[in-house]
Amino acid sequence: MLSREQLIAQIKQKRSFLCVGLDPDLDKIPEFLKGYPDPIFEFNKRIIDATKDLCVAYKPNSAFYEAYGIKGLQSLISTSKYLPADTLNIIDAKRGDIGNTSDKYAKAFFDDSDSGMDFDAITITPYMGNDSVTPYLKYDGKWVIILALTSSVGSKDFQYSEVDGGFLYETVIKKSNTWAGADRIMYVVGATKSTEFTNIRAHAPDNFLLVPGVGAQGGSLEDVCKYGMTKDCGLLVNSSRGITYAANGPDFADAARAEALKLQQQMEQELALAGII
Amino acid sequence: MLSREQLIAQIKQKRSFLCVGLDPDLDKIPEFLKGYPDPIFEFNKRIIDATKDLCVAYKPNSAFYEAYGIKGLQSLISTSKYLPADTLNIIDAKRGDIGNTSDKYAKAFFDDSDSGMDFDAITITPYMGNDSVTPYLKYDGKWVIILALTSSVGSKDFQYSEVDGGFLYETVIKKSNTWAGADRIMYVVGATKSTEFTNIRAHAPDNFLLVPGVGAQGGSLEDVCKYGMTKDCGLLVNSSRGITYAANGPDFADAARAEALKLQQQMEQELALAGII
Repeated sequence: MLSREQLIAQIKQKRSFLCVGLDPDLDKIPEFLKGYPDPIFEFNKRIIDATKDLCVAYKPNSAFYEAYGIKGLQSLISTSKYLPADTLNIIDAKRGDIGNTSDKYAKAFFDDSDSGMDFDAITITPYMGNDSVTPYLKYDGKWVIILALTSSVGSKDFQYSEVDGGFLYETVIKKSNTWAGADRIMYVVGATKSTEFTNIRAHAPDNFLLVPGVGAQGGSLEDVCKYGMTKDCGLLVNSSRGITYAANGPDFADAARAEALKLQQQMEQELALAGII
Repeated sequence: MLSREQLIAQIKQKRSFLCVGLDPDLDKIPEFLKGYPDPIFEFNKRIIDATKDLCVAYKPNSAFYEAYGIKGLQSLISTSKYLPADTLNIIDAKRGDIGNTSDKYAKAFFDDSDSGMDFDAITITPYMGNDSVTPYLKYDGKWVIILALTSSVGSKDFQYSEVDGGFLYETVIKKSNTWAGADRIMYVVGATKSTEFTNIRAHAPDNFLLVPGVGAQGGSLEDVCKYGMTKDCGLLVNSSRGITYAANGPDFADAARAEALKLQQQMEQELALAGII
């Protein structure tokens, strides 16, 4: 578990605000791993070992594990146990349901007594409002990362609806930001819309933003920093496929490290430019 | 798998549009079941046996299984395999993510080759728009049930935002209703807001509505039917706790049946009143 202060300290120490997305796909992982009892965990383990000094967060996407049923869940549990103690470990689950159901999802991902999983943070979809978020906040020190503006095509359908003279995603930030402080709430903000950061920062000046769209999805790190960075950094920039599938031979972990290192070096520059390190 | 025509035929034959929610909780199920290797499945099995002639749909809520980790997922898989072929079997998962992730969730719940689960329908949260819905529609004959208006306190936060001279939930229906026909898309509509049905029917005249709020959450079946019923019925009314926790002794399945029967009899009256049977 990382508090806001600890997260900021990690960013300064590692000179990085990189989040590595762990979205494994049996069709894409190196052939030699398939002989292991749990190929997905073996894949993740090697990616984690190769990148943990270069990133401050990991983000397994639940769907990629759920698709494999019991075996997939076992891989996710093993991965969650293997994640370092000094990274922010996010389950990208995009859950969102009424209070008594959110209680159960919170138990699944935040309380390892029955589920075996103890993540630090969870991504949440805001459509059902307050009671779909607050159950997670009952867990001391855990984070909720609320979808605000996403980088997908479908973001145009509802997130840009005009509400109160602004966009729906602004209403989502304005309202949800009253439910807890910037030490408990982050927002998902799509990096392909860099010019929107200014707008978002008007409503969420201090919150960390989880930016999923750099790398395979095509956002620019420079723009993200220009518009989204705060004096505490305030950014976690994710790369999944760009790192984990940099190569698919026996050298895949080295290739992943090389890609992570490139991003870390760019991030170090940005942090220095902003006077944070 | 049930097509729209088959669902309507089932409703007429069983004289019921009842959906039984399967949200098991180890703290609430009868003591004697706890000696079985899979108490949750044993509980569900008995509920299903006791109610299957009285309902046309079952709806396990994924969170209640996920909370128990591997054991919970095993209970959900066993339950999914046990669900009758002549009911619409809905996984209440409220997923919602970008296209490549939704592909994985669709595989998890609609394709039993790896996951062991083959549900007929899934509940989806619409915040991320089109590409968070369409991947499920690639599965022939499967249904997507989109959250429109929910019965929770938090529904006021965003669903009632004013958009285009109406409410956000109306925009959700209007737009998503163009992505597929009423043979593939249903909507979740909270029953505590019966007067809103008229409004919803203006945008979704033919779609089935899944109404979660009757019973423990307090909606009125009469109002739901008055405002929401179509010539094809067009309603699935859910009851979870009101049925499954009607008693918690050895007679729990009989008590569940008695509660389901009460609802079925009220539904039969409503169907007759509307001239559907």
